[in-house]
Amino acid sequence: MEQQIKPWLVQQSTIVYSQKWMKVKEEVCLLPDGQTINPYFVIDVPDFCNVVMVTNQDEIVMVQQYRHAAGIISLELPGGMIEPGEDPMVAAKREMEEETGYQANQFDLLYSIHPNPPLENNRAHFYLATQLTLTGKTAFDQYEDIKLVLIKKQAFLDQLLQNSFTHGAQVGAMFAAAIRLGWLKS
Amino acid sequence: MEQQIKPWLVQQSTIVYSQKWMKVKEEVCLLPDGQTINPYFVIDVPDFCNVVMVTNQDEIVMVQQYRHAAGIISLELPGGMIEPGEDPMVAAKREMEEETGYQANQFDLLYSIHPNPPLENNRAHFYLATQLTLTGKTAFDQYEDIKLVLIKKQAFLDQLLQNSFTHGAQVGAMFAAAIRLGWLKS
Repeated sequence: MEQQIKPWLVQQSTIVYSQKWMKVKEEVCLLPDGQTINPYFVIDVPDFCNVVMVTNQDEIVMVQQYRHAAGIISLELPGGMIEPGEDPMVAAKREMEEETGYQANQFDLLYSIHPNPPLENNRAHFYLATQLTLTGKTAFDQYEDIKLVLIKKQAFLDQLLQNSFTHGAQVGAMFAAAIRLGWLKS
Repeated sequence: MEQQIKPWLVQQSTIVYSQKWMKVKEEVCLLPDGQTINPYFVIDVPDFCNVVMVTNQDEIVMVQQYRHAAGIISLELPGGMIEPGEDPMVAAKREMEEETGYQANQFDLLYSIHPNPPLENNRAHFYLATQLTLTGKTAFDQYEDIKLVLIKKQAFLDQLLQNSFTHGAQVGAMFAAAIRLGWLKS
């Protein structure tokens, strides 16, 4: 008989830490083979979104930011957290416009993922924005300190193929965008 | 004068939750513009590794697992946590052998990332394993329930290009491997 992977049964779920938009839960889980895991950690964090933005001159619009947990100055795709109940595409357009001052006539979903499915319950959504218009109307969050960086197509592809980008799940979105744009071929 | 993005100064760091291999820290941070963030969350979790495994018949070796935080049956690359002080490549080879029962004669780093640099301080390392030999000697962790899935080259590429894989940062590693193997072209 073919092996079937089955979900676990949650017997108890306790919030052990809760601050602002983050919760840590400890769950008592019954496994299909009868074993119990106690505790299994689940981190409850918001969904987020990122946008691969391409100007009409084939430049990629990126942002440079300090990222405190990793302690790095990071070159990354614009984006941010999705508010509870907010449509992911609306959130992505909002974050793009606020962080970069660009609007897009064409805005398409690349794909969605689970950023860290063993540990975190959130989702991430990646978009491709083209036919951009610069309005210059940025609106940063209170603590945001962001530098806009435009990278020409070939330099972006070189950095992507040399694996220079190191920000989480964004690398996959960059490859998917390059395929969608015809910059990489199967 | 060109804008310079600067790091923050940690004025106080308190561990507010600690269980097994996970810690949550609340930090009081002084920003370059004089503002204070209190608290800023930092999640301390282990580094991890994943391996894109290619058989001599151009099949990709993947594993199917239940991932409890997201509540999904996930098709993903073999891999796991790196022990404190362990060499990432040694960990990746160990996880690959234990989960799949394959050894590799050729084992190369694809790239390393920060999985979630605003929130988490860990790193992830992705490898490409080729020239595989099946020993069949698996060694699962106590709670691991894993089904081995071999996917032929064209089916793998189709699923990758249709964005069927949804496990975190692994999508980027799959694209990078496909480029390295000459399955995608710039």
